[in-house]
Amino acid sequence: MGDLEIRPAAAEDIPEIVAMLADDPLGAQRESPEDLTPYLAAHTRLMADTNQHLVVAAREGRVVGTLQLSIIPGLSRKGSTRSIIEAVRIHADERGSGLGTQLIEWAIDESRRQSCQLVQLTSDATRTDAHRFYERLGFVGSHMGFKLQL
Amino acid sequence: MGDLEIRPAAAEDIPEIVAMLADDPLGAQRESPEDLTPYLAAHTRLMADTNQHLVVAAREGRVVGTLQLSIIPGLSRKGSTRSIIEAVRIHADERGSGLGTQLIEWAIDESRRQSCQLVQLTSDATRTDAHRFYERLGFVGSHMGFKLQL
Repeated sequence: MGDLEIRPAAAEDIPEIVAMLADDPLGAQRESPEDLTPYLAAHTRLMADTNQHLVVAAREGRVVGTLQLSIIPGLSRKGSTRSIIEAVRIHADERGSGLGTQLIEWAIDESRRQSCQLVQLTSDATRTDAHRFYERLGFVGSHMGFKLQL
Repeated sequence: MGDLEIRPAAAEDIPEIVAMLADDPLGAQRESPEDLTPYLAAHTRLMADTNQHLVVAAREGRVVGTLQLSIIPGLSRKGSTRSIIEAVRIHADERGSGLGTQLIEWAIDESRRQSCQLVQLTSDATRTDAHRFYERLGFVGSHMGFKLQL
């Protein structure tokens, strides 16, 4: 396969990112790829926040993966800064290619570069394959993740 | 009990916040209340980030609780902004007083005010009392929370 580039997501990448968010058993029910307006507004907001890193993985110019890394300073654990990984998606054509590992390793390296002491993420309890994937990368599933819809 | 005020944490509050972080079965092993230097540096960093809201609950001028709320824009769920609650601590004297509920309700109200569509948090799998507490407040424990120490 061709060379892979991981780079900040541009507004032009939004259609391909949203298509990946929607091409997923959970995402299919909660995304609206037919109306990109709210995604473009969110992208503008993400670009304005220096602690948000929305990236795409591109192979031969084609967007094949995405991930959001958020940097969060805090007091606990002796003033640790932590990072949070959200919205990891791999294009259907690339699943099993090792791209997921490359994206998560990028996020871990970037977290180190930004002096984070902890990387965290949550994964829906139904995504058991994803849980094994994160455990193989060294993550420990030590927590329960709670959500409240507003 | 006297009136409760929930307000942004000032540098002067750091000793009392760190004492609460350390007065906890998990926190006792990972905090250093005898050296506040890293906490004061983290507080400066938190104050500089408009998406971080570190608050204390004060009763009659005394700090009795703390919580950090982080606002995170994102693309998924139609460009939803989510908030993350971290580092919730209640002073030992105030446990069972309803203060935890008041702090979480403050965080939910503030998240609504900031147009978040989702509030999330993780809780160590060993904190089963906390899990029941969050479920009573309407949170759904739908996710596994993974952490990687760097």
